[in-house]
Amino acid sequence: MAINKAVPETLCPISRAEDIVGDRWTVLVLRELFMGSHRFDDIQAQTGGTPQMIATRLKNMESAGLVARHRYSERPPRYEYRLTEKGEAFYPVVIALRAWGETWCKSQEEELAVTYIHKPCGEPAGLGPLCAHCAQPLRRGELSSQPGVAYSAERQARREAFKGSRSSASVAQAEDA
Amino acid sequence: MAINKAVPETLCPISRAEDIVGDRWTVLVLRELFMGSHRFDDIQAQTGGTPQMIATRLKNMESAGLVARHRYSERPPRYEYRLTEKGEAFYPVVIALRAWGETWCKSQEEELAVTYIHKPCGEPAGLGPLCAHCAQPLRRGELSSQPGVAYSAERQARREAFKGSRSSASVAQAEDA
Repeated sequence: MAINKAVPETLCPISRAEDIVGDRWTVLVLRELFMGSHRFDDIQAQTGGTPQMIATRLKNMESAGLVARHRYSERPPRYEYRLTEKGEAFYPVVIALRAWGETWCKSQEEELAVTYIHKPCGEPAGLGPLCAHCAQPLRRGELSSQPGVAYSAERQARREAFKGSRSSASVAQAEDA
Repeated sequence: MAINKAVPETLCPISRAEDIVGDRWTVLVLRELFMGSHRFDDIQAQTGGTPQMIATRLKNMESAGLVARHRYSERPPRYEYRLTEKGEAFYPVVIALRAWGETWCKSQEEELAVTYIHKPCGEPAGLGPLCAHCAQPLRRGELSSQPGVAYSAERQARREAFKGSRSSASVAQAEDA
C-alpha cells in the first residue's frame, strides 16, 4: 500500500484514492471512526486487527490527512483519533459500500446492521444516496443511527472478548513477573 | 483477502463488502471493466499489475459473483470479462471514490481524469451523486464519458508501453528458442 507517492503516476482519482484506502483494514478503521470509536482500544476491539495492524493504518491515515490525533490525557499521554475534513468527506463512499454490502453480500434473512433515521423528515433513510422517504440526499449530520439487535450484540461481544483478552494478558504478565 | 467466507462473522455490510473489494487491485480491475476494458491484456495494461495479480483478482471476482467470463474466440479459446448485475451494482461506490479522489487526492492544477455528460439533461454531471445541472441521481447508463486530454494520453501511453513490452518479450523468447 503506497501512501503519498512523491510522483503520482496517474490522473485517475480512483487510483489516487485507493493508494490511501485500498486496504480492508483502513476501511474498517474508517467505519469505526464514523461509528464514534475514537480510541485505539475500541478501534482494535471492533475491527479485530492486531495492535500493529491498527497502528500502521492510523499512522498512514494521519500522513494522508484523514485523521488527526488529539491528546485526551496528559499523564499518561493518551490520544484519540478524529476524522479531519478529508476523512469526513469519505462518508459517501462508506454509505455506498454499506448499500452494496447490505444488498449484495447478505442473505434475505439477515437484518440490517444499522438503520438510519433521516432527521429532517423523521423517517427511515434506507440505503441512500437519497432518503427512501423524502428523496433528499443523505448527509452524515442528518442521520441518527439505530444498530440492530443482532449487530449490537455482536459489537458488545467483541468489546467483552477484547477486555477479557486484555485481562488474561495482564494476569499472564503478572504471573511472569 | 478472504473471499466467500463460509461463516460470515459479522453482520456489518462494509466488512462483508471489503472481504471482496478490500484490495486496491480489485478496485482498479473494476474501474477498467466500468471503462469498457473487457479483455485480460487491456485490464493488465491499464492497471499495471502482473498477469498473476490480475488473474487472481479476476478469479476471486468471478467466485464472488462480480464478473462472468464469456468466450469470444473458439480457437484458441479466449475469454472476456463482463460485470454481472452484482458487479454493475458496485458503480455508486466507484462514483463516490472518484468524487473523493478528484476532490481530495489531486491538486487544483490537475484536470479531471474523465468528465461525464448527463445524457437526460445534456450537461456536465459533475462529481455526483446528483447531476450538477439537473440534480437527478446519476445512473451509469445515463452518463457519457469524455476522458480529459492528459488522461487520454496517459492511457494511450500505457497501451503502447504494454504492447512494446509484449513484443520485446516475444523477441526475447524467439532469441531463446
